[in-house]
Amino acid sequence: MVAIVPRLRINSPRLKTDFDALAEIGATQSGGVTRVALSNEDLEARAWFANRIEDAGFFVRDDEVGNLSGVLPSKQPNARTLLLGGHLDTVPNGGRFDGSVGVLAGLECLRTISEAGISLPCHLEVISFTDEEGWWQSFFGSLGMTGTLQPHHINDVQQDNAAFRAALYRAGIRVSEVGRAKRDMNDLLGYLELHIEQSKRLEQANIDVGVVTGVVGRSTYVYTFFGEGTSAATTQAPDRRDALQGAAMFITQMYALIADEYPDGIVNCGNIEVQPGTFNVVPAEAKLRIECRHQDSDILNEIESRLIRMAQDIALMYHLSVHVEQMYKRQVAIMDEGILRLIETVCDDEQLTHQRMVSYAGHDAQILSPFLPTAMIFIPSKDGISHNPKEETDWEDVENGANVLLQTILRMAEHA
Amino acid sequence: MVAIVPRLRINSPRLKTDFDALAEIGATQSGGVTRVALSNEDLEARAWFANRIEDAGFFVRDDEVGNLSGVLPSKQPNARTLLLGGHLDTVPNGGRFDGSVGVLAGLECLRTISEAGISLPCHLEVISFTDEEGWWQSFFGSLGMTGTLQPHHINDVQQDNAAFRAALYRAGIRVSEVGRAKRDMNDLLGYLELHIEQSKRLEQANIDVGVVTGVVGRSTYVYTFFGEGTSAATTQAPDRRDALQGAAMFITQMYALIADEYPDGIVNCGNIEVQPGTFNVVPAEAKLRIECRHQDSDILNEIESRLIRMAQDIALMYHLSVHVEQMYKRQVAIMDEGILRLIETVCDDEQLTHQRMVSYAGHDAQILSPFLPTAMIFIPSKDGISHNPKEETDWEDVENGANVLLQTILRMAEHA
Repeated sequence: MVAIVPRLRINSPRLKTDFDALAEIGATQSGGVTRVALSNEDLEARAWFANRIEDAGFFVRDDEVGNLSGVLPSKQPNARTLLLGGHLDTVPNGGRFDGSVGVLAGLECLRTISEAGISLPCHLEVISFTDEEGWWQSFFGSLGMTGTLQPHHINDVQQDNAAFRAALYRAGIRVSEVGRAKRDMNDLLGYLELHIEQSKRLEQANIDVGVVTGVVGRSTYVYTFFGEGTSAATTQAPDRRDALQGAAMFITQMYALIADEYPDGIVNCGNIEVQPGTFNVVPAEAKLRIECRHQDSDILNEIESRLIRMAQDIALMYHLSVHVEQMYKRQVAIMDEGILRLIETVCDDEQLTHQRMVSYAGHDAQILSPFLPTAMIFIPSKDGISHNPKEETDWEDVENGANVLLQTILRMAEHA
Repeated sequence: MVAIVPRLRINSPRLKTDFDALAEIGATQSGGVTRVALSNEDLEARAWFANRIEDAGFFVRDDEVGNLSGVLPSKQPNARTLLLGGHLDTVPNGGRFDGSVGVLAGLECLRTISEAGISLPCHLEVISFTDEEGWWQSFFGSLGMTGTLQPHHINDVQQDNAAFRAALYRAGIRVSEVGRAKRDMNDLLGYLELHIEQSKRLEQANIDVGVVTGVVGRSTYVYTFFGEGTSAATTQAPDRRDALQGAAMFITQMYALIADEYPDGIVNCGNIEVQPGTFNVVPAEAKLRIECRHQDSDILNEIESRLIRMAQDIALMYHLSVHVEQMYKRQVAIMDEGILRLIETVCDDEQLTHQRMVSYAGHDAQILSPFLPTAMIFIPSKDGISHNPKEETDWEDVENGANVLLQTILRMAEHA
């Protein structure tokens, strides 16, 4: 049984000093940060983080996929580990908060607990996961840690594979050894991640804390409509078999369907490529990149099916054919109800307003959630802007979030 | 006064022999023809055509833009010239009829008239224009002949400019001398062009001959919608500023407007390019290539204006901006009413059914029509297919068209 210390508070100026120092590593002229995974800047940030861990008297831990941790060990024999996490990597010209807040607040919680002389029945480990943003391979670190990294994650990457291998090697990660990064999940008590919301829901509702119930499932598809590339001049309207006309109708109807029937879902048509693509030829081919997100597996599947049927109906109407290929499916991730309630209790005690919400963006928490009790704490993002130099969160919200994290750690440890 | 010889007929087997021989030059495996302007195949076709002209005892004429003619001179002093034309060049893997029929039927008319010992008060000249199809520069030959070739026609081409210069030079065309190809229009009596229809109107109405009243005007535009490239995951629906969503609505509404209010007009969105173009980012930019055609100048202008207003309204609705740039405008071309009536009379005498129609495709006739009395005779295209190996016209229709051309020549000569 841990003595709860309700008035324990993180050291906000010390956290702010870390935050500002980290934001300098890879700082861009526009006020953002470029610290893509395994880059010079990312390696510099890791070295800086390792120094902060050692300065605080904790153990540095790393693994075969490049995850980097600071550990405050418990004195109890056979103690399990409570993980707190985030990531030091960013998208190109991204913001200062995304990923960093989770890592730095976690470290600050370890320092605060350690300084207060509190002895916990579990180890505390603050972890920075490798390449959360997917410059090379999204969630590389958390996939490695959970033993779910597949060969195609290394051999079929968006970026050039040889360059990825070279970048891994330079960071001390050997492809032949990544399988050894897998940890025994029985050793882990749970995973907590503090993160900015990246959308406007908290700000608009004037709520302090988002209690994340899950991460939406995500599927991506390539839809290709096929028509006939006849002369635009001499093909009469009824004879046009215009792949782009069908595609445009599909896009229009897709957004209408989501607005009308699935307001909690998200779809995006991010690209369209047309062949042959000249002024005076009816488009013979239109290739669309489609993405769907929803918090409910069944509804996500339903949206996917209805969009496919809609495309088929439109193809029929415009005398086209359509080919649909699923490129990627990420299952819905569900957070641990017990921890969610703990977080809500903490917020109430701290007199912070809170609201349950899903995360539409992906996070390492979704990779861990099938394996151990996992939860995320959101704090407001100004104007919902993220992955952008204008990403901003009031410092008071960061401080609140870090204190909610601290108290949640203490209460989880109580049940360890 | 010419003696009209109503029962005079072209030599159909001789014309067919020429047709088959020409179709061999640049023949493709799929039964089409690749004879793009100034290519080896095009130069071979010109040499073949020059031989046919000389075999028939006519004069070969060429000019500084590579137009190649056969001339049957009149014995009358100060005679003017009646031009009959077409083009030997094709699009890549195009058909056997487009362009060729006009050239070969014109040559056959000269041979038929010459053989019959008919002495006309005008010179007859069958001309093949350079690069009608625009592999380098559409209507290069007819623009040169009418003195309307502009510096940008040589210096701003779709293809690589250096290669165009080299191709011209190899064909004996010197850029510094193209201005000398301009002819005195007072020396010319008129221009007649026999061509396949390239659409289905004659076939569907079971009509033998199309009497072309004009060539539609054509304008091309680049429309660019600008939105904001935010995260598709975390941008809530009301905050999306999706350039592609607006563009898709524009395409959908554009075709609806034309179908509802301008059934004689043609629009085409031939391409769309999206930035940044990934699954999970809201499209920040969508660039559309739009083409409009109509036979009436005022209505063409009206369509163009309404589409621009429509794009602006849609941009407003989706919180986008839109930039519209006109790339090209070709004025409506109007054929000579006097010659149209002659053609109709000839058809009636020949017991061929006929119908007035516009041409949606471009032809050299449209370049010549502002300068001299011009007319075109259309014969049916099977299934309206053109610019394709499957381009096909019944030989009987070619024969009918050539005889209509022959009789029209004789009647025009009567009024020379």
